[in-house]
Amino acid sequence: MDDLHGCVLALTGGVGGAKLALGLADVLAPGQLHLLVNTSDDFEHLGLSISPDLDTALYTLAGVADTTQGWGLAGETWNTLQALERLGGDTWFRLGDRDIATHLWRTQQLAAGRSLSEVGAALAQRLGVASHIHPMTDDRVRTVVHTASHDLSFQQYFVRDRCAPAVTGFSFEGIASARFNSAVGDALRAGVFSRIVVCPSNPYVSVDPILQLPDLWQALRDSAIPVVAVSPIVAGMALKGPAAKMMSELGVPATALAVAQHYGQRYPGLLDCFVIDHSDAPLAGEIGRLGMAVAVTSTVMQQRQDKRRLARFVVREALA
Amino acid sequence: MDDLHGCVLALTGGVGGAKLALGLADVLAPGQLHLLVNTSDDFEHLGLSISPDLDTALYTLAGVADTTQGWGLAGETWNTLQALERLGGDTWFRLGDRDIATHLWRTQQLAAGRSLSEVGAALAQRLGVASHIHPMTDDRVRTVVHTASHDLSFQQYFVRDRCAPAVTGFSFEGIASARFNSAVGDALRAGVFSRIVVCPSNPYVSVDPILQLPDLWQALRDSAIPVVAVSPIVAGMALKGPAAKMMSELGVPATALAVAQHYGQRYPGLLDCFVIDHSDAPLAGEIGRLGMAVAVTSTVMQQRQDKRRLARFVVREALA
Repeated sequence: MDDLHGCVLALTGGVGGAKLALGLADVLAPGQLHLLVNTSDDFEHLGLSISPDLDTALYTLAGVADTTQGWGLAGETWNTLQALERLGGDTWFRLGDRDIATHLWRTQQLAAGRSLSEVGAALAQRLGVASHIHPMTDDRVRTVVHTASHDLSFQQYFVRDRCAPAVTGFSFEGIASARFNSAVGDALRAGVFSRIVVCPSNPYVSVDPILQLPDLWQALRDSAIPVVAVSPIVAGMALKGPAAKMMSELGVPATALAVAQHYGQRYPGLLDCFVIDHSDAPLAGEIGRLGMAVAVTSTVMQQRQDKRRLARFVVREALA
Repeated sequence: MDDLHGCVLALTGGVGGAKLALGLADVLAPGQLHLLVNTSDDFEHLGLSISPDLDTALYTLAGVADTTQGWGLAGETWNTLQALERLGGDTWFRLGDRDIATHLWRTQQLAAGRSLSEVGAALAQRLGVASHIHPMTDDRVRTVVHTASHDLSFQQYFVRDRCAPAVTGFSFEGIASARFNSAVGDALRAGVFSRIVVCPSNPYVSVDPILQLPDLWQALRDSAIPVVAVSPIVAGMALKGPAAKMMSELGVPATALAVAQHYGQRYPGLLDCFVIDHSDAPLAGEIGRLGMAVAVTSTVMQQRQDKRRLARFVVREALA
C-alpha cells in the first residue's frame, strides 16, 4: 500500500474472517498485518489442544488451506480418523492426517510450557507466513452456547450438532480474568497500528469474545486508531456459518443493520466505519444514525481478487 | 490342540516374540492364549502414550501388522509425520497415520482413568482378537539403557540411536513397586494355565522386565506349571533385534547357551525346558547340565507354517 503507513490489526474468527485476512496480507507490505484471532472455540479433543480459528488463519495465509471444502488443509487425507473409527473413537470432529501434526506439535509445545502465542509464532514461521497471527489471549477462554434445554461447548454445537440447536445466548468462560495478547497490547501502545479492522466474522461467537476481553476493550477505548468493521451479513444472509441463523433465534433480524446495532450497543464509540455490501445500501442511512460512518462496496469475496479489493477498500478508502 | 488342556501363558516382547505368539494363537483354541507383554519400553512421545510391544502383539494377532517391514501396520501411510517434519517436530519415532489412531485412543482412555489392561482389552476386542493381550503391569516401568557415558530411555536407544551405543547394562525404573497384571495373577492362582512359554524375545530388555516384577517371580516360583523358553539366539545370531549385539557388549558370548545361563542364574528353577535350534544342537549337553531339559527343533520362523509348527512343538512336544 503506497498510501497506508503503519500496520493493520485485524480481529478475526474462522473462515469468513480469514478471507479478508488473506486479502489484507496480499495488499499490505510483508509483516504489516497483525491478526488478533478468536481462541474461545479452542478445545481439547482426543488429548489434543485444537485451535480452529488460529489454524484457519495459519493455513489460509500459508496458502495450504482447502478452499473448496472451506476448512482444513488442501490435499488432506483421513487415514488416522478412519482407523480411529474402527477403534470406536470419537470421529465427529474431522481431523485430517496433516492437520493432526499441527495439533500434536501444538499440544507438545504447550505441555512443555510454551504459550499459545509462542507456539503460533513458531508455526507461522515454519509455514513461511510473514503476517503475525496472534491468539486473542494466552489464557483459557471457552465459548458456552446456551440453548433452551442445555449448554454446549462451541465445537459440540458447531461441528458435532451442525448448528442445529436453537441458541438462546452465549457466554465466555474465563473471559473476566483473561488478559489480551501482550504483544498486541505493546504494539497498540507503541502506535504501531494505523487501522483496526473487524473482519466479517460471526459477531456473537468470533468477534464478541475478542472485544469482551476486559483489557482489550479498555485499550481500544483509550486509542484513537480508526476502527473499520465489515458486515458478515449480506442481504440477510451470512457470508459463512451460522450468524444469520443465530440472529433469527436470538430474535434479531438477520441484517447488516442489526450487526451494526449489536456493535454500537455493546461497544459504544468503537466503530468509526461500518462497511456494507451494495445490496444493503438501503440500510446505510439507518446505520449512519448509530453514530458511525457507513461505506458501501462489494463485500462478497469469492476470488482472490475480491479479497484484495475489499482489503484495499477497508484500509484505504473506507475512511478516506 | 487336541491334547493340550487349559490355556497357555506366553511372555513376550516385540516382533520376535509376536511371531511365536501368532503361531500359538493359530494352534490353540480361540481365547486359550494369554500373552503377558513387556511394557517397560512404553513411552510418552508427542503427548501420546505409546506401548510398542502391546501394539506389535495386537497388530500381529489382528492380522494387520506389516510383516515385510517388521513393525507397524500393513498399508500404512505417513502423512502426519511428513507434516510434522515440516513443522520441525520430532520424527525419529516413525508413527504411521493409522498407528497414531491407536495412540490417540489409548492416550485418551488412560487420561480418562482406564488402566492399560482395560484399554488393551478394548483394543483387542475392537480389532477382533480372541487371544488375551495383557500388559505385564498397569504400573509404570521404564527401561533405562546404560552406556559407558550416559543413560538412554529404551526408545532413544532402540529407535532414535538405532542400537548404536554399546550397552553396559539395563535397569527398570519403577519395577520394585510395580505389581504384575492382576488378571493373569488370578488366572495363575486359579490353575487356568497348563503351560508357560517364554517367547524368543530379547532376554535383557523384553523378558527380564517381565520376570523381574517381584510378585510375578514369586508367583512363578510358587507354581508347578511347566515353563518352556525358546532361545532368541540361533547359531550366534539374534532372530530379530539387538540381542546378540548386546550380549557381545556385555561380555557374554552370543549363544543359546549364554541365554540359558542367563535365565538359569537370574531365575533359578524357573525353566523346565529350553528350546534351541538344530544348528545349536552341539550346545544341548551343556545347557542340560544347567538343570533344565533341552529340546531341539527348527526355531527360525519365516512362514506362517513355521510359527504354527514351533508353537505346536513348544506346547505339545517340548516337555512330552
